[in-house]
Amino acid sequence: MTKHHFRASHWHNVLGTLPPALTVASGDSVITETIDSHGFDKDGVHRAPEPNPMNGPIFVTGAEPGDALKVEILRMTPISDTGWTRAALAGNVVDPEFVRGLPPRDKTIWRIDRDALTVTPDPPVPGLENFVLPLQPMIGCFGVAPALGQAFSTATSAENGGNMDYRGFGPGATVWFPVAVPGALFFLGDCHAVQGDGEIVGTGIETCFEVEVRLTVEKGRALVWPRGESATEIYSVGNARPLDQALQHATTDMFNWLCSDYGLSPAAASHLMGQVVRYDVGNVFDPAYTMVCRIEKKWLSKR
Amino acid sequence: MTKHHFRASHWHNVLGTLPPALTVASGDSVITETIDSHGFDKDGVHRAPEPNPMNGPIFVTGAEPGDALKVEILRMTPISDTGWTRAALAGNVVDPEFVRGLPPRDKTIWRIDRDALTVTPDPPVPGLENFVLPLQPMIGCFGVAPALGQAFSTATSAENGGNMDYRGFGPGATVWFPVAVPGALFFLGDCHAVQGDGEIVGTGIETCFEVEVRLTVEKGRALVWPRGESATEIYSVGNARPLDQALQHATTDMFNWLCSDYGLSPAAASHLMGQVVRYDVGNVFDPAYTMVCRIEKKWLSKR
Amino acid sequence: MTKHHFRASHWHNVLGTLPPALTVASGDSVITETIDSHGFDKDGVHRAPEPNPMNGPIFVTGAEPGDALKVEILRMTPISDTGWTRAALAGNVVDPEFVRGLPPRDKTIWRIDRDALTVTPDPPVPGLENFVLPLQPMIGCFGVAPALGQAFSTATSAENGGNMDYRGFGPGATVWFPVAVPGALFFLGDCHAVQGDGEIVGTGIETCFEVEVRLTVEKGRALVWPRGESATEIYSVGNARPLDQALQHATTDMFNWLCSDYGLSPAAASHLMGQVVRYDVGNVFDPAYTMVCRIEKKWLSKR
Amino acid sequence: MTKHHFRASHWHNVLGTLPPALTVASGDSVITETIDSHGFDKDGVHRAPEPNPMNGPIFVTGAEPGDALKVEILRMTPISDTGWTRAALAGNVVDPEFVRGLPPRDKTIWRIDRDALTVTPDPPVPGLENFVLPLQPMIGCFGVAPALGQAFSTATSAENGGNMDYRGFGPGATVWFPVAVPGALFFLGDCHAVQGDGEIVGTGIETCFEVEVRLTVEKGRALVWPRGESATEIYSVGNARPLDQALQHATTDMFNWLCSDYGLSPAAASHLMGQVVRYDVGNVFDPAYTMVCRIEKKWLSKR
Repeated sequence: MTKHHFRASHWHNVLGTLPPALTVASGDSVITETIDSHGFDKDGVHRAPEPNPMNGPIFVTGAEPGDALKVEILRMTPISDTGWTRAALAGNVVDPEFVRGLPPRDKTIWRIDRDALTVTPDPPVPGLENFVLPLQPMIGCFGVAPALGQAFSTATSAENGGNMDYRGFGPGATVWFPVAVPGALFFLGDCHAVQGDGEIVGTGIETCFEVEVRLTVEKGRALVWPRGESATEIYSVGNARPLDQALQHATTDMFNWLCSDYGLSPAAASHLMGQVVRYDVGNVFDPAYTMVCRIEKKWLSKR
Repeated sequence: MTKHHFRASHWHNVLGTLPPALTVASGDSVITETIDSHGFDKDGVHRAPEPNPMNGPIFVTGAEPGDALKVEILRMTPISDTGWTRAALAGNVVDPEFVRGLPPRDKTIWRIDRDALTVTPDPPVPGLENFVLPLQPMIGCFGVAPALGQAFSTATSAENGGNMDYRGFGPGATVWFPVAVPGALFFLGDCHAVQGDGEIVGTGIETCFEVEVRLTVEKGRALVWPRGESATEIYSVGNARPLDQALQHATTDMFNWLCSDYGLSPAAASHLMGQVVRYDVGNVFDPAYTMVCRIEKKWLSKR
Repeated sequence: MTKHHFRASHWHNVLGTLPPALTVASGDSVITETIDSHGFDKDGVHRAPEPNPMNGPIFVTGAEPGDALKVEILRMTPISDTGWTRAALAGNVVDPEFVRGLPPRDKTIWRIDRDALTVTPDPPVPGLENFVLPLQPMIGCFGVAPALGQAFSTATSAENGGNMDYRGFGPGATVWFPVAVPGALFFLGDCHAVQGDGEIVGTGIETCFEVEVRLTVEKGRALVWPRGESATEIYSVGNARPLDQALQHATTDMFNWLCSDYGLSPAAASHLMGQVVRYDVGNVFDPAYTMVCRIEKKWLSKR
Repeated sequence: MTKHHFRASHWHNVLGTLPPALTVASGDSVITETIDSHGFDKDGVHRAPEPNPMNGPIFVTGAEPGDALKVEILRMTPISDTGWTRAALAGNVVDPEFVRGLPPRDKTIWRIDRDALTVTPDPPVPGLENFVLPLQPMIGCFGVAPALGQAFSTATSAENGGNMDYRGFGPGATVWFPVAVPGALFFLGDCHAVQGDGEIVGTGIETCFEVEVRLTVEKGRALVWPRGESATEIYSVGNARPLDQALQHATTDMFNWLCSDYGLSPAAASHLMGQVVRYDVGNVFDPAYTMVCRIEKKWLSKR
């Protein structure tokens, strides 16, 4: 199990079948520094154009279409003293006629205290003078190359992952992606120091992290959508618009998961989901929205 | 502050401007027994047709259009030993072609242990033999008469509340509705022993409760959508389809709330919501879906 | 077959179970003058509040739940020299961020030439100096009382009809509504001199008409959604949001219609619809949108 | 102006930045034989995998990002005696619970009479014995490489065109696509002998055509969405889900077009569109739906 220190020298604005920047074995971990969603690195140097430039792709030896790539997010260490956000709700998350009155979408700077692990607007926002947020790192955009030779902008998401902006994708999370090409071709970037549900101002607190992930191939585990696991829950992720359809994808995937891996009949899976399911809203800013369908592990016994 | 024991003798399938069944003063509390969503009472007697027969309406003296009706859910005591659910996911929460393979939507009985405060399928569902859920009572459908002489089926929801099926509407919650007619005309019913997010099998565990609520008029507090408060959070509720629009309503309402009652500028409200907002999914089974937009009180200081 | 001259003296902003203003026999025709969507009559006198005040309801003897009410639009004669529109696209029909730049939604006056049967902005709109539209009368809002004691604002639409704003609802059209209450309780109003698809500025050219309709009960013809017929086509109407769901309702209804009344198997109905179906967009401004699913009669032979 | 006879030897399932199969000058025309959406050629030989294998890409000299590629569909000659369709409505175009009862999605063969220019199911469908459709050729999927190195499956559509399945894309139509890469990289395929609105069985009558198109670069005509022109109308095309968003894209684009190229003020464009706009439904089967926003040329005078 090698630990790779991967220093990106160029970045990508799509998730697609591109030449690998690094090759690793299944089970290896990778440590890499990400740049922010506008392409600035930890020193404020502009290294790549937006949207959401990605480190990668990383070729994982042995990964083939029909497998799953397991991604364990082991650590996210902030490496910059600042982050930035937009200063107004996005037009698509409010009532249409209300958009006329929204404030301008200015760029606002936040100070990251890397000792205290807190974030605060700098200068302070009038009316939010004592607004100090605990750091809650997450990966905004990550995933693998999609099937069929497709390549998707890092400003959206699909079956292969992408810009899902789900708060749950932080240290401790394990995420699986459906492998569609040899080597899986894993990408990551667009990390946030903090973000509310939905990324409704169009950004989290955009900054740079040193990220450590472990990449493992699970042979023959054919997936349709990304799946994940926290200490207490399993979850399925649907990416689409409208949110209703993202919910349909995530719900269908969870249902299939419960039936195939946890030995439940369709009726049992319906009963379980009907009375204990939880939903989280991921990104509702991008072309594709993200809905997460969660079940607590305490209800499950793996077959 | 009078405590009324209200025994319903007839029930309503709409929320509208109907003759009051009870008149109370602002600040009074009401104790009443609800029947289940199919109209069966705690003794299994069929008392009213579906959908979701409502107790009420209750006329609250002094309530006028432009006021808010505050509803505190003080207590929900189960009064039946059984509840029921549907045995299959609803067609609209899964991928369309997947509907072909869903199990039949049979009625399933659950045993309610009123001492242990637990619920379990009876007979057990194969594969879920040890499935014992802690009782988590909630009001599925409640609200006030809508504006303009409208009357809405209790199978849906709108600005006036209705069938929102939000898990948060249980004991301890405070909910405000926009008063649109003199006396507000408050209705309630369709209580659930437990329910997952979304009511994705089309039911929670449908049963009967003795519910105690306190009804208070807040003069001049003009609302557009229902709002609520728990011990730790405030929240706005949007009811519409698609879920995207419900989210727009709830988000717009929270934004307005933060600006008007908490002294935030549009930019400050955007920053706060952008980085700390949370969303909960209410009903995604009915004609109108429900989305809840939440903010923790710890971020707020009331003006 | 009596011809009734019905002079409305009060108007309604909901379609619901209200006291009849007129009772007619099945097959009778009714001539009535409508007022505009803001409640102004042909003399500019304000007679009723918005939205869309309705003439009616008209009780049609013999109509019972489970029947259809056939409405033949025999004639629409303009009775005012002016109409009005809004001067800007509605926020919900353009891209959200684009709303910031829309012009104000001013009221614009149009001159109706009742001899030439044309309509033109007055004063002329700069850049549209020679914009003379042929009069194309249509009923914006009509329908019957809904089921269950419900009552719906005339600003929206549902199974019972309502504010569908479909250009096809003009002279020569025949429309069927599902009867949900004794007497059907027919309402009409909100007539337009001209209107583009979708009512995307939130209005057609709003004005007053003398309308002549024939009302006939079709016993035992149970409908779910409104249906219609022109000289060359039959059509089903779905009312919901998003437009996708309105399309699902209309498509399902047409499929059922072809199978039940035209003797087609599900496969035959699929083939026919798949290769010859046409869709029209009705209202996309209101809470519920309208989609019309059309089939040319030349493909059909009634069983 | 050269006329190229382009014989495809391999096909693509994405629209992306791929090596050109042919290079032409601006203004040249191309004659090429397409294969059907499952990859069968006119002789029934399977040449390429689904979905919708494309001929191309064609590099048009001089095309640069920021230009438009004008595609004139000059001729579509059927070259096969058969086509095929699916035998059931797609699950996503009917009410969700209705999907349970849909017939199986079998493949049905249609006979194409290339002299009479008609199409008919073969063997006949019971109940549709005399169902003879006039040939109405159209290109289901065409467009250019998208921006940013993206590549999109030919089963969907976006700003760059793709699988829009609009009946209007037949002989006589002129269509413009936004050029995003040098040479534009034009693709086409998936032609239909006939198709109803929406492609609601998931197919038109899928077959092979000899297509003749003229490809012309319009320098500096920066587009966001595809645009088109028939003998009598101009139109903008929006591709997205839900249909509401496709409509927003198309409506916004038409508004911009009227303001920039036809000298209308925002208010004049609103008035014109509000009272004369028409919408057509393209594909409602794929991940992205298509809506077409049309204006008759008679209302316009080009600046």
